[in-house]
Amino acid sequence: MEKSDFVIIGGVAAGPKTAAVLARRLPEAIITVYQREKHISYGSCGLPYFASGDINSFDELTRTSYGVARSPGFFKNSKGFNVITEAEVVSIDREAKTVSVKMLETGEIFKHGYGKLVLATGANPIQPPFPVAESPKIKPFVRPADAINFRKMAQTGQVGKAVIVGGGFIGCEVAEAAGGLWGIEVTLIEKENQLLPYVLDPEMAIIAERELVRQDVKVITSGKVEEIAINDDGSPVVKINGRDDIIADYVFLCLGVKPEVTLAEACGLEIGKTGGIAVDKNLRTSDPDIYAGGDCIESESQITGDKICIPMGSLANRHGRVIAENLAGNRTDFPGVVGAFLVKIFDMNVGSVGLSEQKAKNSGLNPSAVWGSFGDKPDYYPESQTFCVKMVYEGNRLLGLQAVGKGNICRRVDVFSSILQNSGSLDDLIDFEQGYAPPYSEAIDPLYHLATMALAKSKGLEFIGPGADLENYDEDAVWLDVREVDEFENDTWPYAEKHKPINIPLNDLRDCLNELDSKRKIMIICKRGPRSYQAALILKQAGFEDVNIVAGGVTAMQ
Amino acid sequence: MEKSDFVIIGGVAAGPKTAAVLARRLPEAIITVYQREKHISYGSCGLPYFASGDINSFDELTRTSYGVARSPGFFKNSKGFNVITEAEVVSIDREAKTVSVKMLETGEIFKHGYGKLVLATGANPIQPPFPVAESPKIKPFVRPADAINFRKMAQTGQVGKAVIVGGGFIGCEVAEAAGGLWGIEVTLIEKENQLLPYVLDPEMAIIAERELVRQDVKVITSGKVEEIAINDDGSPVVKINGRDDIIADYVFLCLGVKPEVTLAEACGLEIGKTGGIAVDKNLRTSDPDIYAGGDCIESESQITGDKICIPMGSLANRHGRVIAENLAGNRTDFPGVVGAFLVKIFDMNVGSVGLSEQKAKNSGLNPSAVWGSFGDKPDYYPESQTFCVKMVYEGNRLLGLQAVGKGNICRRVDVFSSILQNSGSLDDLIDFEQGYAPPYSEAIDPLYHLATMALAKSKGLEFIGPGADLENYDEDAVWLDVREVDEFENDTWPYAEKHKPINIPLNDLRDCLNELDSKRKIMIICKRGPRSYQAALILKQAGFEDVNIVAGGVTAMQ
Repeated sequence: MEKSDFVIIGGVAAGPKTAAVLARRLPEAIITVYQREKHISYGSCGLPYFASGDINSFDELTRTSYGVARSPGFFKNSKGFNVITEAEVVSIDREAKTVSVKMLETGEIFKHGYGKLVLATGANPIQPPFPVAESPKIKPFVRPADAINFRKMAQTGQVGKAVIVGGGFIGCEVAEAAGGLWGIEVTLIEKENQLLPYVLDPEMAIIAERELVRQDVKVITSGKVEEIAINDDGSPVVKINGRDDIIADYVFLCLGVKPEVTLAEACGLEIGKTGGIAVDKNLRTSDPDIYAGGDCIESESQITGDKICIPMGSLANRHGRVIAENLAGNRTDFPGVVGAFLVKIFDMNVGSVGLSEQKAKNSGLNPSAVWGSFGDKPDYYPESQTFCVKMVYEGNRLLGLQAVGKGNICRRVDVFSSILQNSGSLDDLIDFEQGYAPPYSEAIDPLYHLATMALAKSKGLEFIGPGADLENYDEDAVWLDVREVDEFENDTWPYAEKHKPINIPLNDLRDCLNELDSKRKIMIICKRGPRSYQAALILKQAGFEDVNIVAGGVTAMQ
Repeated sequence: MEKSDFVIIGGVAAGPKTAAVLARRLPEAIITVYQREKHISYGSCGLPYFASGDINSFDELTRTSYGVARSPGFFKNSKGFNVITEAEVVSIDREAKTVSVKMLETGEIFKHGYGKLVLATGANPIQPPFPVAESPKIKPFVRPADAINFRKMAQTGQVGKAVIVGGGFIGCEVAEAAGGLWGIEVTLIEKENQLLPYVLDPEMAIIAERELVRQDVKVITSGKVEEIAINDDGSPVVKINGRDDIIADYVFLCLGVKPEVTLAEACGLEIGKTGGIAVDKNLRTSDPDIYAGGDCIESESQITGDKICIPMGSLANRHGRVIAENLAGNRTDFPGVVGAFLVKIFDMNVGSVGLSEQKAKNSGLNPSAVWGSFGDKPDYYPESQTFCVKMVYEGNRLLGLQAVGKGNICRRVDVFSSILQNSGSLDDLIDFEQGYAPPYSEAIDPLYHLATMALAKSKGLEFIGPGADLENYDEDAVWLDVREVDEFENDTWPYAEKHKPINIPLNDLRDCLNELDSKRKIMIICKRGPRSYQAALILKQAGFEDVNIVAGGVTAMQ
C-alpha cells in the first residue's frame, strides 16, 4: 500500500493551496492530492464568465497566467506535490489512517495511507425541494461541466429562453451571462421576497433588481417553484405556485450550495449545526490527524461568534495556507470571517460585508441603519458614477455595510471589512485616512459621511430608509422636495405623483418657512441625501416638530 | 465694531467645513468666514482637470453637484454662516481678540471681533531658489487664476511647448494636463534623481517615469534649474546646469507648497519646526482661543510620531470637523496622519501610504522591503491590468506601501492605510478578508502575497528589488529566466542582452538542474515574481548556495 505523509482530498482551491504551501515548508514530504474531477485548481469563480462568452475558452480557467495547464505534471514539476485526478476517495479509515480511492475511469479501488489528512471536499448544489425532471436542459451551475454544457447550447443557438431558479450570487451572475452576451430571454425566480436575501436587506436588493429589469431580465420574487417538468418536445416547464407555467430552453438550478461532508460524516468527524465540518482555530477537525478547509467547513463570525458557512474561493485559499502552516509545525490561527462579498450584475456593482440589518436582528442585536447615495469621484470629474450604501451598526459599534451601484464600491467594502475585522466603531470610519485624488474619489469618503449620519441620527435626526414603504408612508405627511426647480421638474421619483411634494430649493428654504406648517410631519427629499439633511437642520432650528429625511434620496429609488 | 462668535480665516476646504459643521452644532452662533480670493470652497484638487480640458468650465469646480454656485448667498441660505470674499485678514490682535480685514476691491480696512478664531490659511507655492523673470508665461499652479490663465493660452493655441519645473504630484498632473488633451510638447524637470521623491522610492518612481516618456513627455531628473529668463520675443528660457537652454511658451513652477503662516507668526502663535502652525490633538494652537486646520498646520505621523506637513483636501475637510466639534464643546481628537496619496499620470495609477524605504531609514528605522507585480483581476478575466507594489516593513510591523500601474491600486492603498492606522502587522495583511469576485480581484489579495513574501524573506529567501542596479549587478552571476519559451523569446527585458540569461521554464527546472552550477550565484527572473519564488525553492532544496529572486519580474522593468 502506498503511503504519503500528507493526503489531501479535493483539488480546486483549498486542496492545492494546502499542498503548495506544505511543499514549500517541507520540501522532502510526500504530498498527494486526490481530485474527483478531471480538472484541477481551475478558477471555479470564473465559470459564469466562461458561460457568458467573456472568456474565450474553458482552458483559460485551467491554465496559469503564463499559459501552462495546471495538470498533474505541472504540480509535480513546479510545485513539488502529486495530484491524481478522476480519483474519488470513497471512504476514510481513521483507525488505520488510510483512505480508499476509486479510479473513476477504470473502477479500480485501492487504499492509500496517510500521516495527516486534509479534507477540502468543497460544496454541492442544494437539492431542490420540488420535483425536477432529469434532463440535460435542467442543470445546476457549480461544476465546469455545467458551464461547458450551457455554453455549447447557447453558442449553437439552442437557448432562446432560460429560467434561473434562485436569486443568490450565482443566479445573478448567470442572469448576466445568459442575458448579456447571448441575448437570451431570461426569467430569474427567487423564493424570498428579494434577490440576494442572505447578504442584502430588501431595499438594497431592489436597486440590483431594477438593473436586471432594465437589462430585460424578468425577475420574479416570492416565486415558489412547484415542479420542473419536461414537455413533449423535451423543453423544461417551470411550474410556479399561482402563476402561468414557463416553458424554457434551459433551466439553471442556482439554489445555493451546502458543504460536502459525506466522507467526514461517514468516518465520524464532528459536523457543526450549520452542516459544515467543525474545525478549531487551527482548522483541525475533531480528529487531531485530520484538517479541513474550503467550502466544506464552518467558520466563526468575527462579529457575532456564530458559526457560518461561506463558500468562497478567497477564503479557501487562506484556509489552505493556515492548514499547511499548522501541518508544518508553525501554529497558525484562522481569524474567522466577516463575510465580504462582491458580485457584478450587468453594469451594477453589488457588495456587502458583515451583517445585514435583518441578520443582525436575527442574531439578537439591536441594530440601527443609515443610508446614503454617493459619487465615486467628484461630480465635476468625468465618468463619476453613483452608488447607494447602507450601514448597519449598534451604538458605536459597526456591524455591516451594503453597497449597490455603478460606482466603484470595492474600496468601501474592503476598507469596511478591514475595520470590521478590528472590531471597528463609527469613530474608526471618521478617523480613516483614504487615498484621495479627483480621478479616484471624493475629498470626503462615503464611509465618513455614513458615520457622521449615524452620529446625527443618535442626536435626534430621523432618517427614513428606502426600505420603508414610501408609497404608503403616512398619508398625512407633507413631502418637501428641496432640489432645484429644474431637477424637480425633469427628474421625478416614483411616488411623487401620489405625495404631491412641495418644491422649495434648499437655498430658498430659510425664506419660505412660512409656506410650511411646523406642526405637520415633514418628509424631506433631494437627489442623494445631503440637502435633505441640511434642510432638516433648518426646519428643526425653526421649531418644526416632526422632521424626517428620505435617506439616499431620489437616487436610491431609481 | 462687528463681532462674531467665530471668525474663520480661509475659504477653500478646512474653513468652510469648520463653519458648516459648527453651524449645524450651534445654529444660533454667528460665524464669519473671510476669504481673500473671489472663489470660495472650490475644488482646488480639480484644477489640473480643468486645465487639461477634462472639465469644461471653471464654474464646475465652484458649484455644488446640483449646479448651485457656492456663493456667499449659498452659504448663508443653505449652511447658515457668513462668507465675505476678496477680504484679506491682515493682522490678528490676540489681546483684543480682533482681526483687521482689508477689502481688496476698495482698500477699506476694518476690525472684526471674535470669540474664537480659526486659521485655515492654506499653503503657498514654495519660492524658486533660482532667479525667475516676471511673466504671465511663468507661473505656479496653485490657484484658480493659474489654471484659468494657462487654459486660456492653451485653448487659443499659444502653447506649443511647455516646461514644468518640479516632478511632484502637481508637476505630474500638469504634465498630463498639458501633454494629454492639448498635445503640448512637455518637458518635466525634477531636481532630485527621481520623480515624486517624497512618496516613492526610486525604483517605483521609474515605473511612473516610463509612462510619462511613453506619452512623449521629456523627463529630466537631477535637473538643476539655474534661471528662468525671458528672451527678446517674450518667451521663457529655462537654463539648466550642464544642459542646453530650453525655450518654451509656458513654464509651470511646481516646486511644492509650504504652510501659509504669516498671520500666525505675526501674532506670536507657535510655529513647528516643519514650518506649519503647531496644534495639539484638538487642533488648537498655542492660543486657547485660536484653532487651525488644513494645509497651514503640521500633523503628527501615526507611524513615527514625527511632525509632518501634508497639504491635502481630504485631510483639510477632516480637520474642519474636528475643529468644529471642539468649538462646539464636543472634545474630539484628530488621530494624526499616515500619509495616503493617489495620483493619476496618464494611464498610470500611482499611490502610496506610510513611509518609503528611504523615509523609514531617515526616521532611524531599519526597514526591509518586498516587491511584487500583480493583476487587478484574474488573468482570465477581460481587462485585467497589472500593477507593481513595494511594501516597506520592520520585523513584523508595517511601515508603508507604494503601488504603480494601470491596474486598480486604490483598494490596496486604502486597505493598507486602514491597517497601518491600526499599527498593523504582516499578520493583519494575511488575515485581511477582501471582497472577492473575478470582475474585481484575484482570489488572493496582493497584500496577502506581499506579507507571505516578507515572511519567506525572513526565512532566508533573497529578493533583489527592481531598485538594485540590475544592469551592473554582480557580473559573475548566472541569470535564469524561468518563463515559458515563447515569453522568453517575445517579451525581453532591458538587460537581457548583457546578462545572457539561460531559459529553463519553471516546469522543466527540476529535470534540468544539472545544467546549472550550484556553486554560482543565481539570479532568477520571470514575468511577475511567483515563478521565480517557486524556482528559488527548488534550487535551494537542491543545494544551490546563492539563490536570488528578481522581485516584480520583467513587469517591474517595463
